[in-house]
Amino acid sequence: MSITTPISQENIIVGEVANGLPLTIPVYRLKGDGSGPSVYIQANMHGAEVQGNAVIFQLLEQLKQLNLKGDITLVPYANPIGCNQKSGEFTLGRFDPITGTNWNRMYHYNSDLVTQFAKDHSQYDDAALKNNFKQALIDEIDTKLNGPAYLLNTGKRIALNLQKLAHQADIVLDLHTGPISSKHLYCPTYATESASYFNIEHVLLIPSDFDGAMDEASFCPWWHLSDALGAQDRDFNVQVEAFTVELGSQEKIDLTEALNDANSILSYLNHKNVLVDARHKPSNITRYACHLDDYFAYYAPIGGMVEYVAPLGGHIKAGEPIAHVLRMERYLSEQPLQTLSLDCDAIAILHFASASVNQGTELYKFFTNVFEL
Amino acid sequence: MSITTPISQENIIVGEVANGLPLTIPVYRLKGDGSGPSVYIQANMHGAEVQGNAVIFQLLEQLKQLNLKGDITLVPYANPIGCNQKSGEFTLGRFDPITGTNWNRMYHYNSDLVTQFAKDHSQYDDAALKNNFKQALIDEIDTKLNGPAYLLNTGKRIALNLQKLAHQADIVLDLHTGPISSKHLYCPTYATESASYFNIEHVLLIPSDFDGAMDEASFCPWWHLSDALGAQDRDFNVQVEAFTVELGSQEKIDLTEALNDANSILSYLNHKNVLVDARHKPSNITRYACHLDDYFAYYAPIGGMVEYVAPLGGHIKAGEPIAHVLRMERYLSEQPLQTLSLDCDAIAILHFASASVNQGTELYKFFTNVFEL
Amino acid sequence: MSITTPISQENIIVGEVANGLPLTIPVYRLKGDGSGPSVYIQANMHGAEVQGNAVIFQLLEQLKQLNLKGDITLVPYANPIGCNQKSGEFTLGRFDPITGTNWNRMYHYNSDLVTQFAKDHSQYDDAALKNNFKQALIDEIDTKLNGPAYLLNTGKRIALNLQKLAHQADIVLDLHTGPISSKHLYCPTYATESASYFNIEHVLLIPSDFDGAMDEASFCPWWHLSDALGAQDRDFNVQVEAFTVELGSQEKIDLTEALNDANSILSYLNHKNVLVDARHKPSNITRYACHLDDYFAYYAPIGGMVEYVAPLGGHIKAGEPIAHVLRMERYLSEQPLQTLSLDCDAIAILHFASASVNQGTELYKFFTNVFEL
Amino acid sequence: MSITTPISQENIIVGEVANGLPLTIPVYRLKGDGSGPSVYIQANMHGAEVQGNAVIFQLLEQLKQLNLKGDITLVPYANPIGCNQKSGEFTLGRFDPITGTNWNRMYHYNSDLVTQFAKDHSQYDDAALKNNFKQALIDEIDTKLNGPAYLLNTGKRIALNLQKLAHQADIVLDLHTGPISSKHLYCPTYATESASYFNIEHVLLIPSDFDGAMDEASFCPWWHLSDALGAQDRDFNVQVEAFTVELGSQEKIDLTEALNDANSILSYLNHKNVLVDARHKPSNITRYACHLDDYFAYYAPIGGMVEYVAPLGGHIKAGEPIAHVLRMERYLSEQPLQTLSLDCDAIAILHFASASVNQGTELYKFFTNVFEL
Repeated sequence: MSITTPISQENIIVGEVANGLPLTIPVYRLKGDGSGPSVYIQANMHGAEVQGNAVIFQLLEQLKQLNLKGDITLVPYANPIGCNQKSGEFTLGRFDPITGTNWNRMYHYNSDLVTQFAKDHSQYDDAALKNNFKQALIDEIDTKLNGPAYLLNTGKRIALNLQKLAHQADIVLDLHTGPISSKHLYCPTYATESASYFNIEHVLLIPSDFDGAMDEASFCPWWHLSDALGAQDRDFNVQVEAFTVELGSQEKIDLTEALNDANSILSYLNHKNVLVDARHKPSNITRYACHLDDYFAYYAPIGGMVEYVAPLGGHIKAGEPIAHVLRMERYLSEQPLQTLSLDCDAIAILHFASASVNQGTELYKFFTNVFEL
Repeated sequence: MSITTPISQENIIVGEVANGLPLTIPVYRLKGDGSGPSVYIQANMHGAEVQGNAVIFQLLEQLKQLNLKGDITLVPYANPIGCNQKSGEFTLGRFDPITGTNWNRMYHYNSDLVTQFAKDHSQYDDAALKNNFKQALIDEIDTKLNGPAYLLNTGKRIALNLQKLAHQADIVLDLHTGPISSKHLYCPTYATESASYFNIEHVLLIPSDFDGAMDEASFCPWWHLSDALGAQDRDFNVQVEAFTVELGSQEKIDLTEALNDANSILSYLNHKNVLVDARHKPSNITRYACHLDDYFAYYAPIGGMVEYVAPLGGHIKAGEPIAHVLRMERYLSEQPLQTLSLDCDAIAILHFASASVNQGTELYKFFTNVFEL
Repeated sequence: MSITTPISQENIIVGEVANGLPLTIPVYRLKGDGSGPSVYIQANMHGAEVQGNAVIFQLLEQLKQLNLKGDITLVPYANPIGCNQKSGEFTLGRFDPITGTNWNRMYHYNSDLVTQFAKDHSQYDDAALKNNFKQALIDEIDTKLNGPAYLLNTGKRIALNLQKLAHQADIVLDLHTGPISSKHLYCPTYATESASYFNIEHVLLIPSDFDGAMDEASFCPWWHLSDALGAQDRDFNVQVEAFTVELGSQEKIDLTEALNDANSILSYLNHKNVLVDARHKPSNITRYACHLDDYFAYYAPIGGMVEYVAPLGGHIKAGEPIAHVLRMERYLSEQPLQTLSLDCDAIAILHFASASVNQGTELYKFFTNVFEL
Repeated sequence: MSITTPISQENIIVGEVANGLPLTIPVYRLKGDGSGPSVYIQANMHGAEVQGNAVIFQLLEQLKQLNLKGDITLVPYANPIGCNQKSGEFTLGRFDPITGTNWNRMYHYNSDLVTQFAKDHSQYDDAALKNNFKQALIDEIDTKLNGPAYLLNTGKRIALNLQKLAHQADIVLDLHTGPISSKHLYCPTYATESASYFNIEHVLLIPSDFDGAMDEASFCPWWHLSDALGAQDRDFNVQVEAFTVELGSQEKIDLTEALNDANSILSYLNHKNVLVDARHKPSNITRYACHLDDYFAYYAPIGGMVEYVAPLGGHIKAGEPIAHVLRMERYLSEQPLQTLSLDCDAIAILHFASASVNQGTELYKFFTNVFEL
């Protein structure tokens, strides 16, 4: 089989640890013919969320056999500290083990830059606006990376290095997983139509607020630029789409499922005109959506040992059991087995990864006020 | 339905933490008529291994409806520190988080006591031997617990408190789980015949050596006493049976499976004449055994992201794939997907709980040189 | 010696852990004659920051010999999870080990309540305003605590229970420590004058923004109420003072130093008219202040092994060495010992607790643009 | 200043982590003229015990200006996993975070090899015995390192790589620290005389048992060979000396103290005839010794907040206070401040690194039955 698109690799250094070993991240690049949008896909920013690496593997296996219109950059193992932080058998890679800061809340966004840019560049045509703004975002990151090293903490340095790559793209996909989870997609509301090209049943519609994550860092500047120009009566579409793709459960590699998810992503990329002569189409499934405000975290109302009984992706009726909580310390004096339920209909999206929970541990997250896309 | 056997509860204090809160363990007791052997069952010594609590729940639900010949003591939540040690979502409860010492390697055994006892009591009849030796074991523990508090570390104090309860019984079951695991039973070789009364397909036959675990701490003194008296040409059977029952995977509560396992235990207890008029019988399954020396730990020969493909409990042929290791950092320069296999036939008993492994992480444990019981 | 003021104790339950043990916090109360402001003091919200417990001990030892004008509530061991979370020898109690969330960023503040209150109550006199607003804040917390348990996560439930106590007081002190640290005080700018009554050389002046901490949760509502009423041309002083008192280094108990700090706090309370006939006066020391924006975090520009050489509390000149970084992996190929310095004059307030640092680890925090109070 | 002895560097690979990054260790070598014994010194096998790296730095700074009789190999950062395992601010590097196994208990020793060697080689002369046995030890390690990768766990692979280097030397120093600790030396009893050449006041005399540590792995084979040959009436001195040097407290770099310790080591090496024309002599200090059986671990008899008052290295009389334990949860109902003491005279060698302790936490270690060397 002839390989159509060559792949190149670069290893970027994003830090160094106490004994001086460098923290490196592999970056794979495929060149398009320049006629389509460029793409950035990363995986494994949270250490335990490994399945995205397998999806990137399956993407590479297919992409090398295709011709591309847009450039594609793929970054597995995006967090070399989180990847390797073990605590017992599990990968304690959701937050910096020193500070507790979520690795996916350290990206950079400067709203002043957007405001000023909108003021200074309103007379530019669309193409120039896009190019100049993209460059401004990259320059902002470069200024930080090239500034005094003592101003950057560990996670910020990793995040900025990744963000610099992401800002070069028109499409950004950040591959994550939940703890024990069904597949779902974080989608900015302006890009709702695109959600239908992924083979993902559950779509979470998020607003334009910036809370530090990669997807937000990628689309917020463009969304806010569009708003700011709109306030000047200039119509300028949001030029970048960015999604967080939640692939299922953490701590698992499933190569077959990874192929399905690679196909899902290729379907979306095909829709966005990134691929030449590709036949990837979305599956004919019903897609359920809810707004972020309706994404409901259910905390354990009591401590205990939990049997999770709500099927992930399942449509739960108000009052149906979602979990049993076993409490063996008071077997004689109270009901040792308690049943939990919801007050409203919902879809169970994910649950906690352990049966052993404190009062107040996040047990489940649910879609509520669900509608079909 | 009338409850036949009343249950009593006592909470024992096994320590206190830094802010002075006591560490307590619930102890449930059911009285028999004294005509059968007494039983001690504990669960959750390792924090993540919670399913034994559910099995104790299902045992209590049934036992309270039965009449008993022997007393039964049941101890869920045996390790109040391990139960509550979270690191990320997972329960880091296999070892003391301060020292790294495995909580199930801190029980006490004094071989000198056995030797001396055998010397001093050889003229006693069997019943007196048994009673006196049991008391001697309990006294030894009491001496330690009542000695200066500054001589006992945290885990030893917990272990001694549990061991004091266990030494009062003729039958000891310590309920554990593996990481991701099929059910299996640690069985001392002298008690091989009893293994057939549990509904557990995989039996690991272990020698009389003491390595600090509860099962060993329970049977080693009796086994060694039997040996020591045998050396004096006195025939004295091992009077205590003790097993570690591995119930499946950690971090999970499954009440249905817990009922199955409760029935498995009741089948064994019925065989041992603990129950009155019970009809619990073992299932008609093939039981596979191997000796501890043939219990084979397979370490990751390379670091990477692992797809586990050997079915747990499955009979693997030499050369068959047991895992794929994805290595995305050298996709272009080496084979990014490597397949692991074994040199010999084996049964896959358990595997590591995370897909993300260092070179040298224990990937799997296998039964080799398997035989049918 | 006669004890003048009786002390009462209540244990409040703020949660329960997986094996059902309750999380309790001791609350000590001393009654005043009602003629002075009431006081709330808590310690050890971060698990490793234990010295505040010793300060509360020394306060109790003295307060029971004094007569009081205002009520005083003292809460040691404020965080029963953080207190007991060990990882190796150290107390990993700065953030929830499951989520990474800083335990001192989970307090509650509802700015809408303030806005609405200012609108509805502008015609009230000062005393009624104060009483009603205090009650409104307490009611807000009660509503959350009495609402559905599944809406509260673990840390929020602890925080709300503490905040309910704090809202009842006119003066709130939250006792913390740094990692390796000199003493310093977080002081809201409106209360700058009060800072001079603590025997603490370094004062950090903070704005009225709410970022989730206890001090902010205590003063922000009152500060914002004062602002909102000011906008209606109603002059209403901020009625509550709240400080975070940083007592020095974590993981240490020093009873002598605790007595000094108790005297420092009594000096402030005496100034605020809480004590009857007390002679506690502030020490005659120079107090240095800086604004929060000038509180400078210096991150390790390289990974390595750090010898900290800036004396804590010391006035550092630009260019003076603050640390040496040893890098033994490239002894032959680069300078193995590198010296770090600052670009500006500063006071070293605290440094990291370990010599072993990654690139980007927070090495030091410095006061810059320092002025005398 | 002319550099007399050139230094060469090699980086050895001892494993790889989940994202494929290699674990490397720097190895520095200086050549002697072959007329003296060869030396192996390593540091930082436990992640938090960093001061040995600074001692190796100070050794290199001096050694490069000396001529050597024996070869010297120096290995800082001996444990690339332990070095970089952070949990909060501290370096959780005493045990494998996955398994809890102490990194310094994984070295290899095969007593059968010694027994067989003694049988087979008794007719050899001393020099041949030494050379052949050294080679046999190295071959044994090589066989393991070159065997199937799936037989080696992560820590064993690191340990074997280091042990291979150590077995090539006649003198082995493993540089460690305690938690909060005075300097002390683990010394095999046969080498007691050598202890007087280190500037270390406290000497712990240990027997020839193997418990998995580097010092034992280095001297046990030779000690046991000497014994086995002695049983054949062949007089063959132990040919290797190995010490664990405890440099003080963990998590600290002190370059001045490191120079003192480098001089202490050079004094010993000079005594052993490793250096040419060196003037390093031991200090004139009193050295106190005790036997390992008299090295007394004192566990916290109650949980609480500890003020450590026994001066490290101080001679404590029976009954003198060693610690105060503050217990703030029962201030009214029991004595909130309790004083701990010993039943016998002792020297305080080290104490726990945190004030916050559970009942049963190791508070102190003491030399008892002390004698002067």
